[in-house]
Amino acid sequence: MKLTICYDGSLYFGWQKTKMGPSIQEEIERAVLQITKERVHPEAASRTDRGVHAEGQVVYLILDASWESSRLLCALNAVLPKDIRVREIQPADPSFHPTLNAVQKEYRYCLSTSPVENPTNRLYAWHFRYPLDLEKMRRGAEDLLGTHDFSAFCNERDPSPICTLKSIQFHLSKEELQIAIIGDRFLYKMVRNLVGTLVYIGCGKLPSTCIPSLLASKNRRQGGITAPAHGLVLHKVFYDSDRIV
Amino acid sequence: MKLTICYDGSLYFGWQKTKMGPSIQEEIERAVLQITKERVHPEAASRTDRGVHAEGQVVYLILDASWESSRLLCALNAVLPKDIRVREIQPADPSFHPTLNAVQKEYRYCLSTSPVENPTNRLYAWHFRYPLDLEKMRRGAEDLLGTHDFSAFCNERDPSPICTLKSIQFHLSKEELQIAIIGDRFLYKMVRNLVGTLVYIGCGKLPSTCIPSLLASKNRRQGGITAPAHGLVLHKVFYDSDRIV
Repeated sequence: MKLTICYDGSLYFGWQKTKMGPSIQEEIERAVLQITKERVHPEAASRTDRGVHAEGQVVYLILDASWESSRLLCALNAVLPKDIRVREIQPADPSFHPTLNAVQKEYRYCLSTSPVENPTNRLYAWHFRYPLDLEKMRRGAEDLLGTHDFSAFCNERDPSPICTLKSIQFHLSKEELQIAIIGDRFLYKMVRNLVGTLVYIGCGKLPSTCIPSLLASKNRRQGGITAPAHGLVLHKVFYDSDRIV
Repeated sequence: MKLTICYDGSLYFGWQKTKMGPSIQEEIERAVLQITKERVHPEAASRTDRGVHAEGQVVYLILDASWESSRLLCALNAVLPKDIRVREIQPADPSFHPTLNAVQKEYRYCLSTSPVENPTNRLYAWHFRYPLDLEKMRRGAEDLLGTHDFSAFCNERDPSPICTLKSIQFHLSKEELQIAIIGDRFLYKMVRNLVGTLVYIGCGKLPSTCIPSLLASKNRRQGGITAPAHGLVLHKVFYDSDRIV
């Protein structure tokens, strides 16, 4: 079955099960066991890091018994913690793989630009109170689009560092800047490194023309900081059946 | 001094000091004592209830020493918990009283209308998943405007139950309905009772024409439920010096 789930990642050590503390994967396993009495091994489209949120994480799991989707959805939401919700359950082909079949992912990063941090947004936005030049950030983002070796934006050496960024959009509202990034795949901490670098460009710590040489350097140390986890949301995972932007 | 503060009320027993648990008033007193070494008795424009949030609560306190506003603001925010922030500090006349001088208050109530609750909004919106007829709610709200005896919307007998509601506005976005209510003063739990009654009208549990007889009854038991605290935000307190809507 293909589950679309959302969560507030504040209290979790990320998607993946770990001995360090609670994980989303573990909570899903526990809820499924409690409702169906079956031990499952859920796999997710993205192994979101500690503190990262999700609006549209996709999880695949196999159940022996057959369940009506809407009944299973209600039952799981009744036993899951309030900070994890199942939004949708669809049947999926046994050949379906949530990561390998994903053709695109969209992440959204939220920056709060108010002079004083808004307490009700403190767990969901990076409070950055220095002025940001949006035009410079847009200029920098243009050079990130397309297919590149993104080693300079990866916190671990990755044997396949080639990714394609399809779109980077900026939505500015009153005291909030949202950056929506769509790509075919993302390296470890890549979105947060892209955001950190764009923010460094926006506040003048890096020139808006720095991206090509940064990409060419393949050197993580040349770029901006890793933006904090709590501003990041896995917004949507796209499969072939979805309309692609 | 006149402080404008905002807070996430989730973990507090309301504005007012109580033996039951932490309060906003206590945290402000503690922070001011820590920074200035002065014991103050802060008074607020609105005694928000347990779990209610604020974007623009106004607090008045008297300090013996003279402080530069921006320096005091930074110092207080450095020692206050992250869920309480001072947004602004202004000098105030010794005759100023945050409640008595307030000419209007605006509260905002947030309803989440998504089929499944959004985890990152669960502390800031009332999840109400039954369809709401916005036109009926608007119709009901019209009869609430103006000067009335609001005893039917008060959870405690109040010797002065006459209030004037200036405006009730509905803002519908994707999966959220925000109700903004402006009035000269509000009785105990009045905003949450107004919202609960409007929601009952919206889902058909009460007719949209019920308001005049409800007001006339002066009977709290005739109306809709008290909407939960966590959807409510004290948005702004207006004084004579502010532009009035």
